[in-house]
Parts: sequence; structure tokens; C-alpha cells
Amino acid sequence: MRFINEQAIQDIATGASLLGAGGGGDPYIGKLMALSAVEKYGPVQLLDVTEVPDDALTIASSMMGAPSVFVEKFPRGDEYEQLFAKLRCFLGQDIFATYPIEAGGINSMIPIAVAARLGLPMVDCDSMGRAFPELQMSTFSIYGIEATPLAITDEKGNVGILDTISNSWTEKIARAMTVQMGATSSMCIFPIKGRDLKKTCVKKIVTYSENIGKTIRELSKKKGVTIQTLLDVTGGHHILSGKVTDVSRITKGGFNYGKTIIEGIDDDKNKQAEILFQNENIALKRNGEVVATAPDLICLVDFETLTPMTNEGLKYGKRVHIIGLPCDPQWRTQKGIELVGPRYFGYDLDYVPIEKLCKKGAHE
Amino acid sequence: MRFINEQAIQDIATGASLLGAGGGGDPYIGKLMALSAVEKYGPVQLLDVTEVPDDALTIASSMMGAPSVFVEKFPRGDEYEQLFAKLRCFLGQDIFATYPIEAGGINSMIPIAVAARLGLPMVDCDSMGRAFPELQMSTFSIYGIEATPLAITDEKGNVGILDTISNSWTEKIARAMTVQMGATSSMCIFPIKGRDLKKTCVKKIVTYSENIGKTIRELSKKKGVTIQTLLDVTGGHHILSGKVTDVSRITKGGFNYGKTIIEGIDDDKNKQAEILFQNENIALKRNGEVVATAPDLICLVDFETLTPMTNEGLKYGKRVHIIGLPCDPQWRTQKGIELVGPRYFGYDLDYVPIEKLCKKGAHE
Repeated sequence: MRFINEQAIQDIATGASLLGAGGGGDPYIGKLMALSAVEKYGPVQLLDVTEVPDDALTIASSMMGAPSVFVEKFPRGDEYEQLFAKLRCFLGQDIFATYPIEAGGINSMIPIAVAARLGLPMVDCDSMGRAFPELQMSTFSIYGIEATPLAITDEKGNVGILDTISNSWTEKIARAMTVQMGATSSMCIFPIKGRDLKKTCVKKIVTYSENIGKTIRELSKKKGVTIQTLLDVTGGHHILSGKVTDVSRITKGGFNYGKTIIEGIDDDKNKQAEILFQNENIALKRNGEVVATAPDLICLVDFETLTPMTNEGLKYGKRVHIIGLPCDPQWRTQKGIELVGPRYFGYDLDYVPIEKLCKKGAHE
Repeated sequence: MRFINEQAIQDIATGASLLGAGGGGDPYIGKLMALSAVEKYGPVQLLDVTEVPDDALTIASSMMGAPSVFVEKFPRGDEYEQLFAKLRCFLGQDIFATYPIEAGGINSMIPIAVAARLGLPMVDCDSMGRAFPELQMSTFSIYGIEATPLAITDEKGNVGILDTISNSWTEKIARAMTVQMGATSSMCIFPIKGRDLKKTCVKKIVTYSENIGKTIRELSKKKGVTIQTLLDVTGGHHILSGKVTDVSRITKGGFNYGKTIIEGIDDDKNKQAEILFQNENIALKRNGEVVATAPDLICLVDFETLTPMTNEGLKYGKRVHIIGLPCDPQWRTQKGIELVGPRYFGYDLDYVPIEKLCKKGAHE
């Protein structure tokens, strides 16, 4: 157990934003929510998953929806108090702790704000090891753990409780509600006992995010930054360095869909990368050849400062490094690939781990 | 208090189907559901609203969605047991009785089936005095009574609870859920205390439906049926007798939208009627002139048997009488007309009561 201080929150936000793989929402907004909650209600206890009693109930606190909308539509503040209160009689048990559903600029920060406000500890784990666009895309789904009962609300005060027959149905119904609620919603989801959490989560993701954030913070202070240290910390692969020449986006059904084109510069001159995203970056072609797909992480960082870039912040002319990170090993199982592999997202491709794809093209 | 027997159920289904004003769903399916529940679980008590204790809690049992889909997609049977069970901790009080939300082929029968199965009485009232397409279109909304907490489910077993900030928000969110659930859903909605029910409901609608049904049953046995007796019982106006020459329908957003064209026969030769519907018939033009709009009822009955016709059953060549019935007086208030008048449905028309519109054209 340790307490998370202000510096830690800053670093977690930065690191989680990298793991957001282009999605996960703006870390600046997430950070403000967490920092102001901690300032008002006091620091948050971070528990290792091994410290959660087997019978204790934990639940994720998260936002659902289109990241581009988070930037303009904030939560009211007391949403999660309402959700915890409304869920209580459904769960029939007190909630011991909260945890992040995914690593990302918003959803890594929400549980910190919720934990501070409600005086609960937060668990150092998530259910993706990155961000994914749909809610059934959770390591818990691999093991048949249900997302419901969940509670969902908007900033206007509409509240819903769902109890569904599968996590795919939860996604369909909660997504439709989120669209009506204005393309974003707040939710408490995946109530899970400590016993099951230990077996099925992605462990120590908060600490990992913090280490990534700290590395980026320290590197950004140095002159002539190279990304090698960041690649060392994350086990990542350099894919291309270049300049954004086009970003097309549409917001549809509560998602941001789009494509980013990046033209290589310096050593990568005459190379081009095309990234397809659904909130998160899903597939990347370099010079027409696929070199990374989900569930591996396709991440963009600022060329100078290594600050992670989310898709809603990308603009023409922005200079970036593209790096690819290997996903959590649970995603590389058959069930994992069914849930979040390239075919699920509509690409007629077998999943090949990024380290193999990048090795193939290593001479470039 | 009285018990509803099999004959009563048959008559209520017929009469309510007339009050369904083209919508409300197929009374044959509704009737089968009610009859089989009563056969299995025993007869249902019908209470006058004055017999409901002031502090007793009542709730409507209903289906939401596109009537054309009800014909193919049946409830599983135990939906309302689930809904009552899930709602209990939200309501914090036992449910004393159920009642129909509207008069219509399906929603007049569901509460009978629910009352039989759960051993509850049913109250002789509804909240429309007819059928309407959207759930905020309830006399309760005129008095600011909330539709939530409500519980919603589908035949697959997905369950939701909603607690919203307004009945319009309830409609938006519940409709989106219904669309995901396959265009129909089952719900328990508008929990209301006896005290408020007495002040805001449409009274004795079940008995009224039964009287209409009985009248139609008796008339249909006679040779050379005229509709005058039906007009006398309902205070209705004859608008046109004719033959259906066109019905266009689309199912969109969980509603059936469409237009029916009827060419006059016999005394009405050379006249034509055009009816616009959204589940229910909303506006009628005769020879290009508006002669009836919501909230008044535009109803079609079979030319020979006077059996009420719902829009999903209309076919080319069908011979019908069109009759117009005055709505419950609560709908003719300013708030009532805002909720269900022609402008709400997108027609640039002031509401004029049917008796005035029909008087104007009485010489025809």
C-alpha cells in the first residue's frame, strides 16, 4: 500500500495516456479531475491487488463514449456517488475499492477522483493494460466475468442500472444509452471479488503508467532527447518518425472513427504510415505493409518532448514518433484475439505479434 | 371490485383495440397472453380506482416498441416477475396493484396477464384513454408525475432500471434501449401512489373498453350491421367508409411510421381519406382537408364486422369505416395539447376538437 501524491498523478496521467494508444481521452482533463479531488478530499491509497481480501467487492469507475466529446462535456462531479448509492441494493454488498477499467488519459484518472471523494482505496490494476474502444474488451471477458450489474449516468442526472446476459449485450445497450446521453457517460462497471480480480486483471498497471510518465518527464528535460529510453522502459519498437499530413475523423454511434496519415522525416524520409482508429489506434500500415495491429499498442508521441498524443489532439504538421508496444500476454490467447484481434475490428488479417512484424522490417 | 372472466377479456381486447387508434398492437396476440395467464393462474380482480388505498403503490405493466414487431417477437413469459423483483429495492415499497398504461390490443392485455401471474389486482384505469406512441404521452405527465424508477427487459433476459430527470428523457433513453433489444421491450413504468392515481388517471377505461367490445360483438352477429350503435356508445363521428388503396410503412427508431390511403365507396364515393401514423393514427385529411388529429382518436373498423383494425394488419382492398372519437378531456388542456397535439407530431396545425371539425363537414 502507498499513497499517490500530486507528482504521481501527473506521471500516471502521462504514462496512461501513452497506453491509451491514441484513445483513452485527454490526460489534461483527466489530471485536473484527479488533482482537484485529491486536493479537496485528501490523498488516495493505492493497493496492490494481492492486498485486496478475497471476498471484498471492487468495481471499476470509468467514462464511456467518444474522447473528442470529453474535451467539451465535463462530468458534474457527484456522478459516482450517485452510481455507488444506486448500485448498492443490486450488489447486496459494500464496495471495498475501485480500480481503473483501462489505461488512458481519462479512465486512469477517474478512479483516483472517485477514490478520493468516496474515501475508498484504488487497486493497482486494470482490465486491458491499455485502452480499447468497447466495454466487453476486458481481460475479465476472457474468463467469463460479467460487466453487470453496472450503473450509468450523465451530467444531467439520468441514471440507469443494467443487468445483462453477456458483456457484448452490455456494450450494445450501454452504448445506445451513452449516445442518447450526449456521446459520453459515467459508469461503475465490472463488480468483481478480490479472489477473481487477482486471477484476471492486468496487474500493477498504475505503477507501470507512473514509471512511463516519470521516464517521459525526465527525458523531456534533457536536450537532444531520443526515444531509446522510452523503448527500453516499455519494450516498445520504433515504427516511424514523421509529420502528420492528414487526419480524418467522424463521430458515429458514440465512437470517434478515423485515419491518420504520417509522412516520414529525417531517417524515415520517403516512408509513410497510415493509422486506422476507432477511438484507439487499431491498425498501422507502413509503406502499404501492416506492421502493427490490435491488441498490440500503436502509440504516437511528440517528436521533441515525447508527450503522448491522443487522436483528438492531432493536427496537420504535428511531428511525432510512432512506437509499437506489445500487449498484455492475456490478449495473445485465442479468446483474447477473438475479442480484440484485427478481425474483430473488420480487418481480414491474422494477428501477428508486433515484435515479429517489426523484426521483419528491422532493416528499414 | 369484480373478477374479469374469459368473455370480459375478449371484449376488453376488442374495445381496447379500437381505442388503440390504429396502434397499440395486435389484440389477438394480447388476448392469447391474457387468456393463457388467467387459465393457468386464475382470474384477475379488477378494482375501481376509488378502491386503491391512498398510500398503496401501483405500477403500469406494458410493452414498448414497434407494433409490427410484436407480431413476430413474443415475450418469454416471466419478464414481469423479473421486473417487479428488480424494482423492489428501488421503490422501497411493495407493489399493491398493476394497471394498463394505455388502451390498446397489447397494453390492455399485459396487465391482466401480469396480475394473474403475480396474484395482484388490476386497476380499472389507464394514463391515456387511448394509445399513444411515446411514453411521456401520459396524463401523469400533465401533472408532473415521473415515469421512473422504471424497469425494462427483453425476451433474452437483459434488464435495465432507469431513474431519469424527466419523462422526455425517459422516452429517449428507454426507446434507444428498446431499439437495441430488437424494437420491442417489456417494462414496469410510472410507479404511482393511489392518492395520485385517483387525481390523474383516465378512469374506468377497462370497463369502457369492455362495453365497446361487447357492442361490437353483438352488432357483428346481426345482419346488415350499421355503425350507428358503435357511434352512440363511443360518442364517435363517422368520417368515411371506403377501401384501402395504399399503405406505406417503415420501421424506424423503434416506431412504425406510415400513411394509409382510403378511397370512398357507396355514399362516400369520390371521397378520399389520407391517414398519417406513428404507430397510432395521428392526422386525417378527407379530400385534402384536415378533419381529425391527435389527441382525438382516428379509428378504422372492418366494414362488415366492425372489428377494429390496427395499422400492421391493413392490406390493399380492405373495406373499412373510419370513425373519429373525442379524446379524454385532460388532453384538451394547454399542457395536454403541448404533449400530444398536432404540433408535437410535426404538423403545423392548431388542435380543433373532432366534434367541431366533423360538424363543419357534416353536410358531406
